[in-house]
This record gives sequence, structure tokens and C-alpha cells, in this order.
Amino acid sequence: MSSFNTIEWKDNRVVMIDQTKLPREETYVECRTYEDVADAIRRMVIRGAPAIGVAAGMGIALGAVNVPADDRAGFVSEVKRISGVILGTRPTAVNLSWAVKRMLRVLEEGEGGVDELKAILVKEARDILDEDIETCRNIGKAGAGLIRDNSAVLTHCNAGALATGGYGTALGVIRAAVEGGKNIKVIATETRPFLQGARLTAWELDRDGIPVTLITDNMAGYIMSKGMVSAVVVGADRIAANGDAANKIGTYTLSVLAKTHNIPFYVAAPLSTIDFDCPGGDSIPIEERDSREVTHINGTSIAPEVNVYNPAFDITPNENISAIITEKGVVEKPLAVNLSKLRG
Amino acid sequence: MSSFNTIEWKDNRVVMIDQTKLPREETYVECRTYEDVADAIRRMVIRGAPAIGVAAGMGIALGAVNVPADDRAGFVSEVKRISGVILGTRPTAVNLSWAVKRMLRVLEEGEGGVDELKAILVKEARDILDEDIETCRNIGKAGAGLIRDNSAVLTHCNAGALATGGYGTALGVIRAAVEGGKNIKVIATETRPFLQGARLTAWELDRDGIPVTLITDNMAGYIMSKGMVSAVVVGADRIAANGDAANKIGTYTLSVLAKTHNIPFYVAAPLSTIDFDCPGGDSIPIEERDSREVTHINGTSIAPEVNVYNPAFDITPNENISAIITEKGVVEKPLAVNLSKLRG
Repeated sequence: MSSFNTIEWKDNRVVMIDQTKLPREETYVECRTYEDVADAIRRMVIRGAPAIGVAAGMGIALGAVNVPADDRAGFVSEVKRISGVILGTRPTAVNLSWAVKRMLRVLEEGEGGVDELKAILVKEARDILDEDIETCRNIGKAGAGLIRDNSAVLTHCNAGALATGGYGTALGVIRAAVEGGKNIKVIATETRPFLQGARLTAWELDRDGIPVTLITDNMAGYIMSKGMVSAVVVGADRIAANGDAANKIGTYTLSVLAKTHNIPFYVAAPLSTIDFDCPGGDSIPIEERDSREVTHINGTSIAPEVNVYNPAFDITPNENISAIITEKGVVEKPLAVNLSKLRG
Repeated sequence: MSSFNTIEWKDNRVVMIDQTKLPREETYVECRTYEDVADAIRRMVIRGAPAIGVAAGMGIALGAVNVPADDRAGFVSEVKRISGVILGTRPTAVNLSWAVKRMLRVLEEGEGGVDELKAILVKEARDILDEDIETCRNIGKAGAGLIRDNSAVLTHCNAGALATGGYGTALGVIRAAVEGGKNIKVIATETRPFLQGARLTAWELDRDGIPVTLITDNMAGYIMSKGMVSAVVVGADRIAANGDAANKIGTYTLSVLAKTHNIPFYVAAPLSTIDFDCPGGDSIPIEERDSREVTHINGTSIAPEVNVYNPAFDITPNENISAIITEKGVVEKPLAVNLSKLRG
């Protein structure tokens, strides 16, 4: 287990580790309103598809707790409005809409008055967190066997405890392999522009005593050509029905490099990341973020005021993915066929 | 021509634009001793293989001018010692040793006393600069025909006026295409860790009115998959006899991506970059630089104190290179055979 809490429900507050401040400071943000939670998701105080799902659930629960209406109809209508705000915070991670739908279902199906509904929503949000950690542990168990002893695993961005309720998806697989006694070295790409690899993955693994070497994104090809990478394991923000996976920008490049060097390329993600309504990667919306993420680091300009393109994600086609690791086991190729068997 | 001077000989001083300060400040460093020049090369105040060659020549000339010995033997011996210091500043760019050898040759062959030798060395250093600019113009002329009108050219690092005496190699090809009336858009990868693309290429192109879009290194695969890149043009720090090219870290990754997407990949470099004594890329030494280049930006830490790997260059194998653009024309495949015809 990781030695810190990514997100917690505490005395009708949502408390998150501030991922924009790591690794310089380990500080926690206390959200008192659903707007605070929406803002935290937008500003990437919390990020990572599963963690966004947990935050969405807690944001709705927090909003619900603070709704003054004492009639059920008024309460339900207000919670639906709040859910819409939460849903609009970020476009790519499907876990966000998954969590919102789940909260709205218990809202509609829940029995009793406003107080009962508030309690039901808070319980559901806490359940999403607990289940997410359990799911990550099961992803870890499922994937650990794919990681060889004495190997070097390259990962991109942060698909760790910080990206989930805890434990992590890609880093969950690595944690489980390490817990199983294997000697694993992790290579973390820094992941520009937001530096989740440098700031979060390096911090999280170092804190938990797992050896990590940091590289810039553009070194991946060179170290693969030198035989320094045994496997690539990444997370996903949305997986289409055919197995195409949206993940942090740069993932596609790594998949091309892995294929060229015959290195296995695994995607680790919970079933809630699979969007069966989405036939292929072309249908996944790609968020474009502010150019300042590229031109400024820690508030300091590193580039002149030129045109910038800043897509936050890219699509890795299913043919570049060796297998998808879920809490129900490893999904082998053909991915489209084998994923469809998991459809609930 | 570019609208600034990368390096100049001025009243027995060597004046360079400080590339560590760009794009925030356009300041010039005045080197009064050869140690100042050596330090500037090491600290990357000046960088780029051809510019390093020019700086090496000027550093030796500056050292020579300041040698107090008035006997020829003592003078020659001291200039040789100074040349050794200059030679040891950086390991990968072959232009450095090429320029040092050239200076030592005129030192040995020059006639007359110490004063005559000093004048000969200063003239030779200034000739290296003038010839480098002329060479870049010829590289530009040779390569411009490879660049289609209304196309988007991706370049990595800075192989521009700032990397040479002026005009540039890869950017020289782009400048020549633009001067020939073509509508060219440049995509500059930021080039971590030292950010030469963001800091230097974006600044240089913007200053000279050539449209440029800045991306992070890990976006290259995605934009190629979207059909947004017509060609890749990069420089080189050393080209082996078989056509393998050492260039800024990340170049190899771009070459793999270009090959996967059937995008032409050109290396633009002067003949002085070709090391005919080096049979293939495996024989080219790869400089590893300080981990702080990765963990700190503008003096601010962006990562915890973990292990870092920081190779400054990588090797692009000849099979990933569509053609090499030199001042003597475009070298087509097979590169090994056609390069050997250029051996002086």
C-alpha cells in the first residue's frame, strides 16, 4: 500500500494531497464545497482517471450535503445540476462520467427523504474510493506475473496511488510484483508538459522505496535501443471497445518505440475505464490545455510567445498494445473480442 | 540571414550571444581569455556542433594572442596546451576536434615569428566563422528543394543560426526554402532537458518572422499520426562514415516515428561533421551531462532527488535517414557509399 492518502472523505470535507505542489511540498487541500472539488479537478490538484472518478463522486456527495432544500424533488434537481458541473470539468477520462452516472443512479433509486439521500450519496462516494483501491490491488495481482524478476519497467505519466484512490494501476502492477519479491527497477519518463512522471511517479516510488530512474520523454527511444527496457506499463484515461487506449500525451510515441524494439507494452486500467459505447480511438475527445503549461514551468517562462499546440492525451491503437491488465485479469489479443466478454 | 550574431571576433575579444539566457534576455558574453571560451562551451553559452567549432577556433586564437612568450618554440608549445584544454570541453561534436586540428595545422605551417603566428591564428579563426556561414548557405540551397511548398517541417533542438556561425543547418534549409518563396510552417520540439527548441529555435524563427509552433517532445508521435508533419529536418553533432548520425537526445525517437509514418527524415550538416574515421554510430562517444539539467529548470527543482540518466545525444542509424544535406549537395542512399565519395 502507498504511504499517503490521495483523497479522503473527512467530516463532510474532501481532503486531497495537492499534486500541483508535489514534490516540493506535501500539502493537503480541504474542499468545503463542490465548486472547490470541481476547481481541484480542473487545476489538476487531483488527476489520473480513477482518482478523477473518486473525486467526482465525492464532489457530488459534498455538494449534496450542502444543499439547503428539504423537499426531495428540489434536492434531486439541485444534485443533478451539481453533477453537471462536475461532469464538465475534464473531457477525456471516462471514469468521470462513470462516477457521475453511478452517483445519479443511487440518487434516483435511493429511498427516503433528503437526509437519507445525503447519507446514501456520501456512502456511495466512499464506496467508490474503497472499491477503487480494491480494484487497483486486483489489477496488481493480475499483472504482476507479466513482470519478470530483475527487470526494468518503463512507465509514463503517473498511473500510481496518486492517480487512483490508492495503490495505482500501472504502478499497482509494479507494486504487486515488488511485493511478490521481484527485483524491479522503474524508469519514469518525466512527462511534459505537466511533469507527472518527474513530480509524482518519482516522488511516489521513492517514498515507497521502489528504485526509480528519471529520464526526459525523448530519451525513451535511446534507452530502448540500448536494451535497457524490459517492458512498458502505462495507465489509460479511456479505452475504446476495440482496445484503442487514450492516455497521457506521449503514450502513443512510447507504443511505437516499444513495437519497434519488440518490447511488451501493457495498459493497466480498471473496467470503469473501458467505454463500450466508444467503438475506436477516433471517437475519444482529446482535451487541449492552456499553452502556458508548455511555455511556463513553475510560473517562469521558458519560451518566447509563439504558437503552441498542447493536446493532453493521445491514442494508442490496439495493435500497439500487447495486453490490457484489468481487475478481472489480463485481456489478451484480439483485444476487441476479449474486451467484449467483460462487458457488464 | 539571421538578424543577430551568434559569435564574433571583436578587438581581441570573442563575443557570443548568451544562449543560456535566451529567450528571456538577449545578452552578450565577452570572452577575454581562452578559459572564458572553454567555460562558455562547457556551460553551453554557445552550443551546436558548427558553432562549437567556430568557438574552438576563436578560443585558441584568443589564447594565442594572450601568450606572453616571444620565442616561437615556447609560443607553439603554449598554444598546443591551450588547444588541448579547448578540445576537452565537450566530447561528441566532431567539429570541435576538426577546428582544433585546423588551428594546429596553421600553427605548425605558419611562417614568421610569434606576432605573425598570432595574426595567422586570428585570421584562421575568423575564416572558420565566415566559411561556416557560407557553408550553411550552401546547405540551405542544396536542401531547399526537398521541402515542399505549404508544408509543415518538424525540427528538433536548435540547428539554426544559433548553432552555427549564422544561418543554420536544418534551419538553413528552412530559411532557404522560405527565401525561395515557399510557405513553410515549422514545428519545434522543445527538446528537454536543455530546451533548445523552446528557448532557441522558437526565439530564432519568431525573430526572423518564420511561423513556428512549439510542442513538447512527446507530442511528435501524435501529430505525425494526425498527418500534421510533412518532413523532419535535424542537424547532427557527428556523422559516421556509414551515415549513422549522432544528434541531440530525442532525434532517434523522431527517426523511428518518421519511419513508422512514412515521413522523410533529413539530416543537414556540413562536411566537417562527418567523421570518416568513425565506421558507425556505436563508435561515437555519447556525453552524459549533470542530472540537474533534468531535475531543475531555471534553478527550481521539478523532481525529487532520485536517480537520473541524462545522455545528451543519441544515434540515428543510417536506415532511418532519408538523405543527408551537405554544402556539396544532397547525399542520397546508400549513405555509406555516397558519403565516401565526399571524402576529402
